[in-house]
Amino acid sequence: MTRNSETRPLGVGLAGFGTVGSGLARLLTDNADIIRRRTGRDIAIRAVLVRDATKAREVPLPAGAELTTDPARLVNDPDIDVLVELMGGIDAARGIIGEALEHGKHVVTANKALLAEDGLALFRLARKKRRILRYEASVAGAIPVVEALKECLAGNRVESLMGILNGTSNYILSEMTASGIEFGEALRQAQELGFAEADPTLDIDGHDAAHKLVLLIRLAWGADYPYAALSVRGIRGMAALDIRFAREFGYRIKLIGQARMAPAGNTEGKPGAPAPLCLEAGVFPALVHHTYLLARVGGAYNALRVDANAAGPLFFHGRGAGSLPTAGAVLADLMAVARDERPNNTGFAEPELARAAIVPPEDWRSPYYVRVMVDDTPGVLRDISGCMAAEGISVAQMIQKAGDGASGVPLVFMTHETTARAMSGALRRAADGGLLREPAVYYRVL
Amino acid sequence: MTRNSETRPLGVGLAGFGTVGSGLARLLTDNADIIRRRTGRDIAIRAVLVRDATKAREVPLPAGAELTTDPARLVNDPDIDVLVELMGGIDAARGIIGEALEHGKHVVTANKALLAEDGLALFRLARKKRRILRYEASVAGAIPVVEALKECLAGNRVESLMGILNGTSNYILSEMTASGIEFGEALRQAQELGFAEADPTLDIDGHDAAHKLVLLIRLAWGADYPYAALSVRGIRGMAALDIRFAREFGYRIKLIGQARMAPAGNTEGKPGAPAPLCLEAGVFPALVHHTYLLARVGGAYNALRVDANAAGPLFFHGRGAGSLPTAGAVLADLMAVARDERPNNTGFAEPELARAAIVPPEDWRSPYYVRVMVDDTPGVLRDISGCMAAEGISVAQMIQKAGDGASGVPLVFMTHETTARAMSGALRRAADGGLLREPAVYYRVL
Repeated sequence: MTRNSETRPLGVGLAGFGTVGSGLARLLTDNADIIRRRTGRDIAIRAVLVRDATKAREVPLPAGAELTTDPARLVNDPDIDVLVELMGGIDAARGIIGEALEHGKHVVTANKALLAEDGLALFRLARKKRRILRYEASVAGAIPVVEALKECLAGNRVESLMGILNGTSNYILSEMTASGIEFGEALRQAQELGFAEADPTLDIDGHDAAHKLVLLIRLAWGADYPYAALSVRGIRGMAALDIRFAREFGYRIKLIGQARMAPAGNTEGKPGAPAPLCLEAGVFPALVHHTYLLARVGGAYNALRVDANAAGPLFFHGRGAGSLPTAGAVLADLMAVARDERPNNTGFAEPELARAAIVPPEDWRSPYYVRVMVDDTPGVLRDISGCMAAEGISVAQMIQKAGDGASGVPLVFMTHETTARAMSGALRRAADGGLLREPAVYYRVL
Repeated sequence: MTRNSETRPLGVGLAGFGTVGSGLARLLTDNADIIRRRTGRDIAIRAVLVRDATKAREVPLPAGAELTTDPARLVNDPDIDVLVELMGGIDAARGIIGEALEHGKHVVTANKALLAEDGLALFRLARKKRRILRYEASVAGAIPVVEALKECLAGNRVESLMGILNGTSNYILSEMTASGIEFGEALRQAQELGFAEADPTLDIDGHDAAHKLVLLIRLAWGADYPYAALSVRGIRGMAALDIRFAREFGYRIKLIGQARMAPAGNTEGKPGAPAPLCLEAGVFPALVHHTYLLARVGGAYNALRVDANAAGPLFFHGRGAGSLPTAGAVLADLMAVARDERPNNTGFAEPELARAAIVPPEDWRSPYYVRVMVDDTPGVLRDISGCMAAEGISVAQMIQKAGDGASGVPLVFMTHETTARAMSGALRRAADGGLLREPAVYYRVL
């Protein structure tokens, strides 16, 4: 009565039994009936790989699963069809995934860092071994952005994508916006509430979002954008002052991962001939107008906006992390394997992904928000404006506020479209002219 | 070098060459390189079925495609692998889809009305013939909600879904909200701008949203909820007055399609045993708090919120109609066929979908918005409140405004959670007591 002739349970070897691994074990129990109804099979964890088998665990092991500290146990067991890698980190994870593929296992992973830094070699190996390598949980947790780009937008030419890809940073920015507190205090709160790690570097300096952006670029354009080439700027030390000024202009400040076709590398109008792909891609704090759905993304949520030539604008929003949301994405991948799909790992038929060309971030065009601290003297506004005009920058809006004396008076500008190169040129002129009391702050406006 | 051994072009028979059909032809040309890169094959339209072959067409026929008025031409051609049905309507569409399946063709359709009213028989036939029947474009246009429910949320127990599923109605409500105009004027504007049909019945009376809701229920729960059993209420005659009052409470009025597990039919805690599924499902205008993303859906856009036991809340937003957005969804389905997936039409392994139990709409629990027009006399508020209290309804907020004399004074209540049965009981008491100058207006609050 089942569609799938393969009615033996799908055997899983689980590497890592932390937050997501124990969430997966719970879902396999709680949703067992759903899984059977949807795939015609059961999914059974055969073995769980941990570093320390003697450690006390809050969550009991899945029934019938064996605890092991030996990676070879998962790789050699003929009853294991799929390795689920939830250990994190790079080297050990790469080792066990590689071994599993070599031994003919399919692989499901949530490891964005490994896939961003070393994914192409793993895709190549999976292709050679004709095995499935799935990774829905590696970007934006419960939000099905991998499937959306790989399958649902398959017939589209993606023009741009931008997202809030790191929940910790978004939580901190949301708290700073809601309560007017400074960055340090918001980070401490996030750490106390478990929204930020003791070492928050990966999150607040933008590296986690950058890993995810590399995966999204591969899915959207079938091109490799080397992780090391990405322009990455996080939110460390963001001033409450700028969040307040941004609000006065009608904007929220968000940590954005963005990639878009560079105007010069536009492939429109040349159907049939693969044109050279040139992308602007990076992670940076930016001002987002309050009427955009992205500006409404609060707390630890993630979101992605994709603009594509058939679909137009699409927006996805949901939980980007957490035990069950992430485990649910892992489970969807497992069920796809249980349904015995053919491998379709990159979403592209070609065996090797070409390398995308890269526009230097200083040449991306966008409006900018700039705040400078100046002395409250006659002519200072004229002098600063002159520095901007000298670089061809045109000002759209301006706010001047009374200062506290110590650090001078803030002048805040919203510019028309320009480049970071022009902006830093104008600010260098202002600094050279002795106009700035402290280094200027500037952000892109979306 | 391609993944797929099947490198012959996928042959398409296109039934219907209107807005969506011509959009599909355009995408197959404009995005031909993308399609080849992603599937390793070309997709070629072999024949186009129209009612009148002599009619002048704005869009030229696809190169190599033959124009025909004979459905048998599409069904018998051995070079046609897939029928794409974009004719709309019920009888002729059912006829050609059935014939195509019988002749071993796969089918891609955007026909929500046919699938809602008669889809189970078509799924049964596709299963018997082992053919793919895909329908991403039939719900919410470019937004990949079919794939999200069928694949990405496969391991989840869906708890509820609610969406803005009809762009015409949303456009009218958005215009009424933004400009304060009455329903009739907003409808006329929408018709002039091409957002509403000359006969807008399907859209504004909720039937189009109801068709889509039936498909979503099948995808989310693997259960059949007969179209005829759905409670459907549209927006015809909605008063600008109520949109204004709703705003004062912080809400927008939206036409919502909703389905959720009824509290009594809750299956939690009984894993492994299929519990009886009982749903509350219907289409109705409702108040949505302005902080909800659903309240932010403007113009002709569509959106869907899904709550599921692993993912938590997910939100999808995008174009729900239009030539290219809908054609892009059809194309994604075609590319899935080109990649030679196994049939997975309903998302469930079981051959027959069981019928869901139905909670009568008068017993759904929710807060309500109520507006009554009363005489401006002492004691009227006490009397109306007494009618509510007699039915166990508790009031959360109240607004009283000066009236224009002719139709009395409006009293507007926001209640705590109650049922439509209690509400209509209270209003009957008020009417019997001679308190109401005109029939009361009430909406659910989400």
